[in-house]
Amino acid sequence: MQNFNFHSPTQFVFGKDTETQVGALSKKYGAKKILIHYGGGSVIKSGLMDRVRESIRAEGLEYVELGGVMPNPIDTKVYEGIELCKKESVDFILAVGGGSTIDSAKAIGIGVKYDGDFWDFYAGKAQATATIPVATVLTIAAAGSEGSESSVITKTEGSYKRGYSNDVIRPVFSVLNPALTQTLPLNQTAAGSADIIAHILERYFTNTKNVETTDRLCEALLISMINEVPKVILDPNDYEARANIMWAGMVAHNNIVGVGREQDWSSHGLEHELSALYGIAHGAGLAIVFPAWMKYNCAHDPMRFAQLAVRVFGCNMHFDNPMRTAVEGIARLESFFVSCGLPTRIEQINGKKEDIPYLVEHLGLEGGTLGSFVKLTEEDCANIYTLMFDM
Amino acid sequence: MQNFNFHSPTQFVFGKDTETQVGALSKKYGAKKILIHYGGGSVIKSGLMDRVRESIRAEGLEYVELGGVMPNPIDTKVYEGIELCKKESVDFILAVGGGSTIDSAKAIGIGVKYDGDFWDFYAGKAQATATIPVATVLTIAAAGSEGSESSVITKTEGSYKRGYSNDVIRPVFSVLNPALTQTLPLNQTAAGSADIIAHILERYFTNTKNVETTDRLCEALLISMINEVPKVILDPNDYEARANIMWAGMVAHNNIVGVGREQDWSSHGLEHELSALYGIAHGAGLAIVFPAWMKYNCAHDPMRFAQLAVRVFGCNMHFDNPMRTAVEGIARLESFFVSCGLPTRIEQINGKKEDIPYLVEHLGLEGGTLGSFVKLTEEDCANIYTLMFDM
Repeated sequence: MQNFNFHSPTQFVFGKDTETQVGALSKKYGAKKILIHYGGGSVIKSGLMDRVRESIRAEGLEYVELGGVMPNPIDTKVYEGIELCKKESVDFILAVGGGSTIDSAKAIGIGVKYDGDFWDFYAGKAQATATIPVATVLTIAAAGSEGSESSVITKTEGSYKRGYSNDVIRPVFSVLNPALTQTLPLNQTAAGSADIIAHILERYFTNTKNVETTDRLCEALLISMINEVPKVILDPNDYEARANIMWAGMVAHNNIVGVGREQDWSSHGLEHELSALYGIAHGAGLAIVFPAWMKYNCAHDPMRFAQLAVRVFGCNMHFDNPMRTAVEGIARLESFFVSCGLPTRIEQINGKKEDIPYLVEHLGLEGGTLGSFVKLTEEDCANIYTLMFDM
Repeated sequence: MQNFNFHSPTQFVFGKDTETQVGALSKKYGAKKILIHYGGGSVIKSGLMDRVRESIRAEGLEYVELGGVMPNPIDTKVYEGIELCKKESVDFILAVGGGSTIDSAKAIGIGVKYDGDFWDFYAGKAQATATIPVATVLTIAAAGSEGSESSVITKTEGSYKRGYSNDVIRPVFSVLNPALTQTLPLNQTAAGSADIIAHILERYFTNTKNVETTDRLCEALLISMINEVPKVILDPNDYEARANIMWAGMVAHNNIVGVGREQDWSSHGLEHELSALYGIAHGAGLAIVFPAWMKYNCAHDPMRFAQLAVRVFGCNMHFDNPMRTAVEGIARLESFFVSCGLPTRIEQINGKKEDIPYLVEHLGLEGGTLGSFVKLTEEDCANIYTLMFDM
């Protein structure tokens, strides 16, 4: 196990009707004037925004609003938020929505406290040392941004999607009401679940040895996802299954199950280019990327793939042929994604093989490599993209 | 799943040589004058105290020391600490040791900030609202106090052992170096492991339905303990196994795997009286209590015991007789404790059946009940104590 630092100070308030506590919680964390940041109209139509505003007003706090965050949130909205916060002397940001809204709020938070261009952080040119406190009311179990130290933003000019990680940007509190996710369209529920599964797998595929505790914790979350997601596909109003998925989504990404080990994250890199080019949901893209990535890299450590297959998918261990077990596990994961109605091939999102050079170039490797389980060259990445096609 | 609040802001700095960071970390959290609180001579003999002092001095911080914390820490040491902190204007407490030292430090921390008698908190007469910041350098994987919101103190007068839980007393940071646990005597390592296992089981046995995610996470930790503990019994210098156990011990008790569900905790209550009367290590007492508690309460929900047996101990599920599987699981747990050299019967710690009325009376139930999985009357408790004897 590697040495590590783990610090997840976010307060999680979880359960039915918890969004009514958002005003009191904001006050507790020092808010005086809040930016309520949100995405599309669903949080307005559902009445959630009204309940949030009412809770804030009840505590005598002021607020301004900035909506319109799109999936795969973009830099221009962040600049708009930074400007608004400065103009209105905002001292607290409340993100009401999913990963995109939260990631955008995190970028605004550190942007306000920074003299330069916030993109410096995402471009690897600077480290954030301060933020306006950010809190969240989560509306989809997916990105894990409600508990994570990371944020992903797309630079409009050139469509570069880049992530930034820093404990500074962990939310001060997150309100998680599983009932809010019951009205999600099925494809969003499924894509969110694929995102959660991917967050676990990015941590699971490691070259670090002797990580039994975090291995078992990762497997526990995967098993729970495999068991609970079909319940909400069958009955979107299954609160209990929604609750199990929502907590798994947070635990999967606040990193308590990923400490002390090398993590991979190349699949996220490969996916970012799919959602940038084809405009698909990040989770749907991951359902395409992961099986291909696994097939390509299985030979690097067949026993680790066999372990996943046996412990998570209940495959038989073929002791005379571990690779067979490994491959069965990948097939089970792919079948699981298919059963959720997710795409698993690029053709399904209207991609073309001719796009592969563009996708690879856009990864920005510039002769370097991607990931750590296997350090992928541009040629490897092209091969993996090729595996995402049926023929 | 029940609604819940989860807030674990402790920063964990984990790995080899991390105790050298203790000075810088204390400074980061605002320390100017530190009380270094510790137990016996082992932290001095090992050189750990010297390294801690050196790290604190290197940051230009002042400190005073208070040693002599005993296993099952007592109120008189807490009073001594409170007085010392006030006299020396201490603003930060660093516990160097295990659960006893940390629990004592937590009690001192809230005691200094409280006008009344600190015992009010443990007697359920008052709630703490503030504390001097407490940090830890952990020397044994066991109590989980390094990440928990709880503390257990014994009142010397009358030998009452009582716990107090409040998010206010979570440490600000905890330094976890698994190498520090390599020099522990085998019986302490084993007792600590039993304590960790008990912390998981107290959460596992619940009447709350639909808790798949936390069930799986609990099982993951149990499996990891079952796999890793024998390694350190075989080779006390197995750093990797020590590291897996240490992280499992923290995760088992900071409550991330116990949220949203009713928890039991009657076994801890039953054990406190054993360690108070017979002076044994808390973990050793739990190895005696838990199998008896399980046998007595198995009929309440045989399927939950069967789930544990199958998923954690790999027992066959007897679909025509789940109770058989359930009982096999309890036997496996008991065998595991035996294999660690732990006692599993009261005779082994020189207890007598004649003591049972005293033990029961001391639980302080006064006509009430203990626990929540099954609400135990005094008669139930007497029956469970009886089951702890071989004959």
